[in-house]
Amino acid sequence: MDILVVGAGAIGGYYGGRLAQAGARVSVVARSDYGAVAEHGIAVESPAGDFVFRPHAVLQSVSQVKTPPDVVLVGLKVLPEIPVADLIRPAVGPGTAILLIQNGVDIERPIAEAFPENEIISGLAFICVSRTGPGRVCHQDYGRIVIGRYPEGRSETAEALADLFRKAGVPCEVSSDVVRARWQKLVWNAPFNPISVLSGGASTREMLESEEMTRLVRAVMEEVCAVASAAGRGLPDDVVDRMISDTRKMTPYKTSMLLDYEAGRPMEVEAILGNAVRIARNLGVSVPRMETLYALLSALEQRNPHRASPA
Amino acid sequence: MDILVVGAGAIGGYYGGRLAQAGARVSVVARSDYGAVAEHGIAVESPAGDFVFRPHAVLQSVSQVKTPPDVVLVGLKVLPEIPVADLIRPAVGPGTAILLIQNGVDIERPIAEAFPENEIISGLAFICVSRTGPGRVCHQDYGRIVIGRYPEGRSETAEALADLFRKAGVPCEVSSDVVRARWQKLVWNAPFNPISVLSGGASTREMLESEEMTRLVRAVMEEVCAVASAAGRGLPDDVVDRMISDTRKMTPYKTSMLLDYEAGRPMEVEAILGNAVRIARNLGVSVPRMETLYALLSALEQRNPHRASPA
Repeated sequence: MDILVVGAGAIGGYYGGRLAQAGARVSVVARSDYGAVAEHGIAVESPAGDFVFRPHAVLQSVSQVKTPPDVVLVGLKVLPEIPVADLIRPAVGPGTAILLIQNGVDIERPIAEAFPENEIISGLAFICVSRTGPGRVCHQDYGRIVIGRYPEGRSETAEALADLFRKAGVPCEVSSDVVRARWQKLVWNAPFNPISVLSGGASTREMLESEEMTRLVRAVMEEVCAVASAAGRGLPDDVVDRMISDTRKMTPYKTSMLLDYEAGRPMEVEAILGNAVRIARNLGVSVPRMETLYALLSALEQRNPHRASPA
Repeated sequence: MDILVVGAGAIGGYYGGRLAQAGARVSVVARSDYGAVAEHGIAVESPAGDFVFRPHAVLQSVSQVKTPPDVVLVGLKVLPEIPVADLIRPAVGPGTAILLIQNGVDIERPIAEAFPENEIISGLAFICVSRTGPGRVCHQDYGRIVIGRYPEGRSETAEALADLFRKAGVPCEVSSDVVRARWQKLVWNAPFNPISVLSGGASTREMLESEEMTRLVRAVMEEVCAVASAAGRGLPDDVVDRMISDTRKMTPYKTSMLLDYEAGRPMEVEAILGNAVRIARNLGVSVPRMETLYALLSALEQRNPHRASPA
């Protein structure tokens, strides 16, 4: 299988590297990190064993692609300033499937609209991984991935990708209802990511220390469940209780949005909150707490004080 | 009239000074600023003309009061760590009225409970004034004050105080329903103060620049109106529209809560949000946006990064 990874950051580097380990022919488009990646590949530190991912080819731009790959793997963040469809267009042939390993809900829609004839595979990564430098990725923990055809249904490509992931030791589940899986992941992300930032840097555990905050976390989760249900993707009844009790048991950590904010990087405000709020409004579901978090986080994103002094 | 000002900060210094100008015998309790105030009085810069307020007596502690005054004027911030009732108790005689010039709603209750036999006069200051140093106060703009007997009704003391204020050029209104006036002021304070902080420092104008944020401001205002109405203090139908359009016309400025936050000073979270949220819950009024702001602001208050490096 010929795979082109667009975005040689944490997600693209890690999962691209695993697919290469399993025998796929994986090339990489690296822009700012081109020099390091072309020379040394991508060094991945992992509790399962460090390895170096040496791509089949390293390109500086998607426009250098000569033969469309079987799969374009997008590991980019979901940000208004990253026009994913335009970015990958030169590499997308008639038979190319597009695998989006990204956060949020409704993030597939612009890609599906831009490539109505191509198979879109939506992927959710449950992983702690970060780019620690040019061509350097550190996998801290977890790593499971859920993939599935967008908007739903079975997919041979997804099955083939899952086989490769599993071969490389990555737990992978193929879902025939990946949109529902996205809503379920949002039940966690919609409260914890924004609140960690808006509260001035609370860890997952600190967000569940006060009664007032726990009440807020729970209420936001219930709003997400209500939207998912109205969108025809109802979630299990116990999902809120389960996520809160699981989070209490986790080692306290900083959410990815908080890490982004503190590093002066853009936050995925639209993917995590904006899209969900718009869907809620279209469906007539009341989501006052999500709207509040969305308005505050959008304003904060515009004036992130950490951005004044880039690292 | 014998008046004792407790708290020689911006509010106490300014309004105490005005009452002295009008001929009242005004003494001051100054703790940290005792030396400067005892020596030089309180220098007030004001667009209406600078003046020096030389108190009849300057005390280091309320316990030094020998004869209870006619009025104790409390200009302190409303904070859990400031036990106002205990603080003023040594100065409160059987005939002493207590004038609270403070922010928020339901802030009179603990004082009324501690001094059930004394007249409580509740005061709302519409003013931009700040303490710029020991014994130094700068009055930037506005200055109107609304006072009235708590919880309601007419008051000769309030009328007498109003005469003094007016004599010194301070616009003063006596209200027979001052609790309603507090709710009305909260319609402005409940959105703008917390949002200015949580958005990372937005000015009054910036908070009304985006559609999403204007929608939030309006929705919070409507929640306050709903609570006021349920509490039997219904506000005019046009109060929300009027406050939003008035704010658009104002010179953009930083809210007092934002100034406190940025200076590492405690914020009046309970007076502005906590009390109102608790009243709403008692009355069964849904205030999801105020609850969200309250939980976030309480968490932020605990970890104010500006407090790490006091100015």
